[in-house]
Amino acid sequence: MSSNLGRFLDLADVGREGVLDLLKLALKLERQPDPQALAGKILGLVFLNPSLRTLASFQAGMARLGGTSFVITPGQGTWALETRMGVAMNGGAAEHIREGLPVLASYCDALGIRAFADGKDLAADLADQNFLAMAALVDKPLINLESAINHPCQALADWKTLDDVGVPTRAKFVLSWVNHPRALPLAVPAAVVHMAALRGHEVVVLRPEGYALPPEIIERARRAAAESGGSVTETSERAAALRGAHVVYAKEWGSTAHYGDATRDLELRAGLGDWQVREPWFSHAAPDCRLMHCLPVRRNVAVADEVLDGPRSLVLREAHNRLLVQIAVLHRLLARSST
Amino acid sequence: MSSNLGRFLDLADVGREGVLDLLKLALKLERQPDPQALAGKILGLVFLNPSLRTLASFQAGMARLGGTSFVITPGQGTWALETRMGVAMNGGAAEHIREGLPVLASYCDALGIRAFADGKDLAADLADQNFLAMAALVDKPLINLESAINHPCQALADWKTLDDVGVPTRAKFVLSWVNHPRALPLAVPAAVVHMAALRGHEVVVLRPEGYALPPEIIERARRAAAESGGSVTETSERAAALRGAHVVYAKEWGSTAHYGDATRDLELRAGLGDWQVREPWFSHAAPDCRLMHCLPVRRNVAVADEVLDGPRSLVLREAHNRLLVQIAVLHRLLARSST
Amino acid sequence: MSSNLGRFLDLADVGREGVLDLLKLALKLERQPDPQALAGKILGLVFLNPSLRTLASFQAGMARLGGTSFVITPGQGTWALETRMGVAMNGGAAEHIREGLPVLASYCDALGIRAFADGKDLAADLADQNFLAMAALVDKPLINLESAINHPCQALADWKTLDDVGVPTRAKFVLSWVNHPRALPLAVPAAVVHMAALRGHEVVVLRPEGYALPPEIIERARRAAAESGGSVTETSERAAALRGAHVVYAKEWGSTAHYGDATRDLELRAGLGDWQVREPWFSHAAPDCRLMHCLPVRRNVAVADEVLDGPRSLVLREAHNRLLVQIAVLHRLLARSST
Repeated sequence: MSSNLGRFLDLADVGREGVLDLLKLALKLERQPDPQALAGKILGLVFLNPSLRTLASFQAGMARLGGTSFVITPGQGTWALETRMGVAMNGGAAEHIREGLPVLASYCDALGIRAFADGKDLAADLADQNFLAMAALVDKPLINLESAINHPCQALADWKTLDDVGVPTRAKFVLSWVNHPRALPLAVPAAVVHMAALRGHEVVVLRPEGYALPPEIIERARRAAAESGGSVTETSERAAALRGAHVVYAKEWGSTAHYGDATRDLELRAGLGDWQVREPWFSHAAPDCRLMHCLPVRRNVAVADEVLDGPRSLVLREAHNRLLVQIAVLHRLLARSST
Repeated sequence: MSSNLGRFLDLADVGREGVLDLLKLALKLERQPDPQALAGKILGLVFLNPSLRTLASFQAGMARLGGTSFVITPGQGTWALETRMGVAMNGGAAEHIREGLPVLASYCDALGIRAFADGKDLAADLADQNFLAMAALVDKPLINLESAINHPCQALADWKTLDDVGVPTRAKFVLSWVNHPRALPLAVPAAVVHMAALRGHEVVVLRPEGYALPPEIIERARRAAAESGGSVTETSERAAALRGAHVVYAKEWGSTAHYGDATRDLELRAGLGDWQVREPWFSHAAPDCRLMHCLPVRRNVAVADEVLDGPRSLVLREAHNRLLVQIAVLHRLLARSST
Repeated sequence: MSSNLGRFLDLADVGREGVLDLLKLALKLERQPDPQALAGKILGLVFLNPSLRTLASFQAGMARLGGTSFVITPGQGTWALETRMGVAMNGGAAEHIREGLPVLASYCDALGIRAFADGKDLAADLADQNFLAMAALVDKPLINLESAINHPCQALADWKTLDDVGVPTRAKFVLSWVNHPRALPLAVPAAVVHMAALRGHEVVVLRPEGYALPPEIIERARRAAAESGGSVTETSERAAALRGAHVVYAKEWGSTAHYGDATRDLELRAGLGDWQVREPWFSHAAPDCRLMHCLPVRRNVAVADEVLDGPRSLVLREAHNRLLVQIAVLHRLLARSST
């Protein structure tokens, strides 16, 4: 993120050096808070989908820097927003993003937007069409609070978490699919596989048949790996994938073989109940192999209590790091002088 | 609004001189912000109905002046509020406004209330019975965030918008009914026709049969026009109305001939699909005739994309002016010294 | 509440001296506000149930002390939270309190939690199992915003209200059951009977058959009474209970004889329509006997308009005192030096 770009949409835009720089600022602000840096500044937060960490940590982050924020949740106290262009608005949505977003942007100094994938058209979701259409309407510093295919705040917090506990950049990083009652978006797996590749890891994507990450996501991560000396491979062989792993990052996502087909996805995952991270998964992993997850996590469906409550788990640290890295992002975007 | 009145409920109370004074203050605070003027002050915002601009801009306005706000949305995280007097409360509403509003007022320095029309009893809505009953329960500075029959913040922002783009006070101002999937309240048309009359315009209300504004609204606007040298007429002849118009203010409202009868209203509006503002509407208007709308607007139902996205449209400026004029209102109501 | 305990969960923990101390601080801060005491501090507010007073007054209280707050309402813009331990989370709740609460605590300086009784298992509710399980997950100053069996903020505000209007500590205090469309929790009656006993009153619990307070609640109040020279008795004889009463505290709660059985409870209360406080109730009470209620109150079901709108009613003062005592609690928990 160049300081004059004024957007935090994708770790790929920020680049490896930019990430290291942001994480240095996060550490500095943790040690020496800058409680008046954003005095008088306002962050608008638009949530088209539910949130806990993002909702709380961005409000807290602005407050830690002396600024304020307001929250808009379309459909809850606010008109539902239409995102399609050119349609006759005779349905449920009373307001179009073409008005709603510029108006909200005009009330604040920076805007954050969360807009999950529609989950119907894979190409549209991979292209992040909805989010980019929204971003084009905002002429203020903008933060991606999770779009169809990206979650840069989560990726940045995860990178810091790996730093915090001293996971070496060349370590083996396994992103493992885990089960869930229904199909979830590709945003976090896409962001995390890219982040781990950019950090320089030997990245292995472990997933059952039908859940391969789209080639676009893998190729993007490989380009990042090439920059950093890492690698990205994909497999459905769990034992081989976990052998020597330093990190298991558990994540749920929907079938890519049957993208948007909830019925086929449910049929597939019905037979995948053993895709729940349990303690025996770590029997051939590296000593002290860590467990990561972006939260929220379905206990005893995606990850067993024994793992989440044991010493491997980094999930609470990851969540707390959301606050710390976002304070750095906000400082960089909005503070008069941010080094 | 006299500075000791402490209420901002109706532009008619404020008067022409008061409006000019508030708009002068808005300009001054835009050029020279007063970021500590409301330090320690709290604005309570009660939304009995959805909001986007009002919800965001009042929070932002308080923040710009160094104050804070809290938001209460009865029925969403807060008990539903009973507004009828004397009833046995054995239904869905757990709390009465007779307790709820004085309690909330006791927690803040000023209160804003949004309470749309019930849309059943025209006389009750025209008399703004619900809102005035609520206002009587509040012993703090009070702001009308849109009541059954008024929306003074919108009217004030619209006046400023006309100033901003240099629309002369004697210009022809057409308030035109436009279509919508269902009946909407009379608050904005009533406030806007009054505002335009008070500003001194030749006001023409253009609407199909069955949608005439109630005589009470027209008479009130005519009294304002008499004060300012303007005029107010009503017609269903679109071509004549638009000829020479400097401003077309598009607005949706429900049938007044069948007030509260959703079925009859729907039947009527089914045949009124051409009451959508399109570019050809402006063929005989004044050069550079402007399009105004309070938002949210149903694109391609009420106003066509071609108009909203073209150079005539003032809708985003109107919305941004909500923030600027409300900062002046808050300053006048709450700042220690406000000139 | 010892200043290093950092929790405000129960008036019994605070003790009589601690309460007097907090009320002294509340008075002091009312007279001499400390508007920067909590500058930079953040209060997280988690509402698993609806709220009006608590929601508004805690935000206002933080603002009065220069701090800020954020609000989380699981299920509304935030994932529904699972509270049961050890379950496979394949239902509606996407996040477990074991992650959700520590994460939220890590974003703020103090946390408040509201979690009403499940209303199914009396023993579990009396033991406040859910709330205590949540409290165990939070390593920050914590405030009980109403749990299954307690509401210390309400009890403290009520104590202050009794002080404000000069009700002597030896006066007769009648907690009377009143009707309501459905069963409500025992939190407020439990907290209030304990508070009144701790203040030293002659406490009489007046309720119809089937609504006796559980022995655990009565015994706990009697222990407090023993400390303060008060007494606690229970009766269904209304005339005797009200004779000479100085305070009638009206409150609704569910049948304890049929706890968790909504059908039997409804049958019982169908015959109890006269358990509505009306003016004749006070005919043999002390002169100027007061009416208290924690709000929200069902007008003309629980208490008649004639009483709520008459001079006996203290309900608005109780609600305003919520703000004043909570400012003292927040100051004590979070201010650098709080005397």
